[in-house]
Amino acid sequence: MLILTLNCWSYSIRYQLFDWDNHAVLAHGEVERITVGDTTITHTATNGTSYRRGVECPDHRAGIAAIMAALTDPGSPAISSLHAITAIGHRVVHGGDTFTHSTLVDDEVLDAIREAQQLAPLHNGPNIAGIEAARDLFPHIPHVAIFDTAFHQTMPEHAYIYPLPLEWYTRHGVRRYGFHGPSHLYLSRRAALLLSKRPIECNLVTIHLGKGVSLCAIKNGCSIDTSMGLTPLEGAVMETRCGDIDPGIPPFMMEEGNLTARAMDNILNQKSGMAGITGNVTDRHQLRERATDGDERCRLALEMESYRLRKYIGAYIAALGRPDAVVFTAGGGETEWQLREKVLQGLECFGITLDSDRNRAAVGEEGEWCISRNDSAVRVLVIPTNEELVFTEDVAAIIAGHHPDPLSYDYRFARPAAGGGD
Amino acid sequence: MLILTLNCWSYSIRYQLFDWDNHAVLAHGEVERITVGDTTITHTATNGTSYRRGVECPDHRAGIAAIMAALTDPGSPAISSLHAITAIGHRVVHGGDTFTHSTLVDDEVLDAIREAQQLAPLHNGPNIAGIEAARDLFPHIPHVAIFDTAFHQTMPEHAYIYPLPLEWYTRHGVRRYGFHGPSHLYLSRRAALLLSKRPIECNLVTIHLGKGVSLCAIKNGCSIDTSMGLTPLEGAVMETRCGDIDPGIPPFMMEEGNLTARAMDNILNQKSGMAGITGNVTDRHQLRERATDGDERCRLALEMESYRLRKYIGAYIAALGRPDAVVFTAGGGETEWQLREKVLQGLECFGITLDSDRNRAAVGEEGEWCISRNDSAVRVLVIPTNEELVFTEDVAAIIAGHHPDPLSYDYRFARPAAGGGD
Repeated sequence: MLILTLNCWSYSIRYQLFDWDNHAVLAHGEVERITVGDTTITHTATNGTSYRRGVECPDHRAGIAAIMAALTDPGSPAISSLHAITAIGHRVVHGGDTFTHSTLVDDEVLDAIREAQQLAPLHNGPNIAGIEAARDLFPHIPHVAIFDTAFHQTMPEHAYIYPLPLEWYTRHGVRRYGFHGPSHLYLSRRAALLLSKRPIECNLVTIHLGKGVSLCAIKNGCSIDTSMGLTPLEGAVMETRCGDIDPGIPPFMMEEGNLTARAMDNILNQKSGMAGITGNVTDRHQLRERATDGDERCRLALEMESYRLRKYIGAYIAALGRPDAVVFTAGGGETEWQLREKVLQGLECFGITLDSDRNRAAVGEEGEWCISRNDSAVRVLVIPTNEELVFTEDVAAIIAGHHPDPLSYDYRFARPAAGGGD
Repeated sequence: MLILTLNCWSYSIRYQLFDWDNHAVLAHGEVERITVGDTTITHTATNGTSYRRGVECPDHRAGIAAIMAALTDPGSPAISSLHAITAIGHRVVHGGDTFTHSTLVDDEVLDAIREAQQLAPLHNGPNIAGIEAARDLFPHIPHVAIFDTAFHQTMPEHAYIYPLPLEWYTRHGVRRYGFHGPSHLYLSRRAALLLSKRPIECNLVTIHLGKGVSLCAIKNGCSIDTSMGLTPLEGAVMETRCGDIDPGIPPFMMEEGNLTARAMDNILNQKSGMAGITGNVTDRHQLRERATDGDERCRLALEMESYRLRKYIGAYIAALGRPDAVVFTAGGGETEWQLREKVLQGLECFGITLDSDRNRAAVGEEGEWCISRNDSAVRVLVIPTNEELVFTEDVAAIIAGHHPDPLSYDYRFARPAAGGGD
């Protein structure tokens, strides 16, 4: 059984083809600069093929066609025929509060995803385009939607309602949804394994530190709070997104700078965060190098990033009680020992004690690590995330007629025998 | 030496006349509904006079004149002549980053306060009107400005800079300022006394729970972080102000509801918070009664309020390390044992253990209380705040030629012999 997963963004598509029976990735890659020109596909297959090529992609449909062409490239096909693909999984960013787990896509489901589009136009738009194109190209196989928001649907009301006019929630859907669900779910299950506990026994603070950054407070295996909100703008400082600020600032600066709501939203999403503080440095390596060389703005950005993450850890421990572990993942979380060290500074009063050597050693993107001292009451783990594997397993579950309820589903990657990642 | 302090708001003025030598309040009161009609003055003096009367007050100048008339009311004067007033202290909400302590008002200082007005038009406007009127009426005595923001000027850059385009800070003054400074300062000094420590040895989380709510992380006697920001809108849930929300919400709802920046700002400040969640119940007593009677929205509002405060305490402990004490003050903080109990629920992992009996006993607005158990690593204190006393002492200090630097000034209320309050 071969499962293809697609992750469609405004200008790119990431994909992975997974051989379920042999538990192996057959091929993966990314189409970049879709619709903007100079489009390329970067394709890697386990048969040894690996290349980056220019392709014509005026839209997402052409992007998906380019992926299919790469998978069946006569010179070195990853699969002999597209008929070999059993099902396709589509990552969908915003599922509103309709979807509490992954779902087989039919017209009704697609309509519900379209309804959630107003909540995340930049994200759900490309997701919908991808689903439509893939269903046209592959009308006879199952398509499954996997939602970023589903894992967080267990949050209690007091965590997801905002202190705003309640009609904004009931009429306009303004509430905390949270994102990065598959990543936090994956971490919660892998962490339970490393802690030799059942997921339902685990309390965790998970920190996804990619281009987008989110934290999650996980109690008994369930998300009870998360830092992203109605949109992926809330929470920690990100590459170009501001995270938490005084809500009086957008109206104030709109009046000061005579800006429209859309222009303001664009600045908060594209020109803020690390980019705003540093004046456009977002690359982690460069940030650290410049800070070491005395660049004050880069030093400040790193200081703010870790200070704000540290406060979130404290806030979530207040929400959870003492957790079993704090878990780092994604780009910065997996590779930046300096960042982890800075974030956890001074948290000994919470029972968190880093082992400096272990922390410095845990910089690969493979392997799972415990980087706290043996006497640390709270363990600190580094676990490379694998959202694609969650997408794939959810597709497999649905084909087999299961509901992959994040709370109770028996994921293969959560079983003791399973390796991490792959 | 008699010191008058004025606290001017858009539609009201609170005042207090203090006899410095005898350390006693001679009179205090409030003029309400200034400029809007049906204006009244509520006046209480230690000579036994106490009344509420209608007055004509088209502007703040007339409001101040009404106060002077009350103080020298021929029937029962608190003072024989206005010449007895030695100096006047004016509370000013926003001092920008110009003022790190209270200051003698001259034309230059008044200009600087006017410059900060764009940052807090609703607050600094009435403050300026009050200063101008009082200087006209009393041109020959010293006028002193006491700033809400001054105590927080010790915050480090990583706490006061926002992850936004840095030009917004350098050109438009967008940064965290924080408010309720005199209250947090007062608590820090009184708490040190109760802890038998010098202020500089104390780490505290102080929680001011009035109509406006703010928390402060105090390290070695200095504010290192506070929950209000550029404006008094950020932070905890308040009566009608939202506190922290996804910064993507204002632009989103402006587009959805076709709202101007000013209309949005008004909703976030006036129609949100407890009022937004409950549909307009803000009175604490009523809130609790209705929640007990099964009103779901009131129950949710109380739950959200305490949950969000609890997370702030966790965040500030992450910033501070284990503090010496958590301190509650102002309306809800002084009188609501249920609120304090709810806020501190589950914080035993931080070394905070409430004594239920002591907590229930501490409901007066007088007296200072320790409400934690004897074995609690972190003490929990209830201290009625006294901002007027800070205003008064700052005026006295400046008349005596001192700089009342919040860090080092030897306040009378912080001396072992002093009672709480006054």
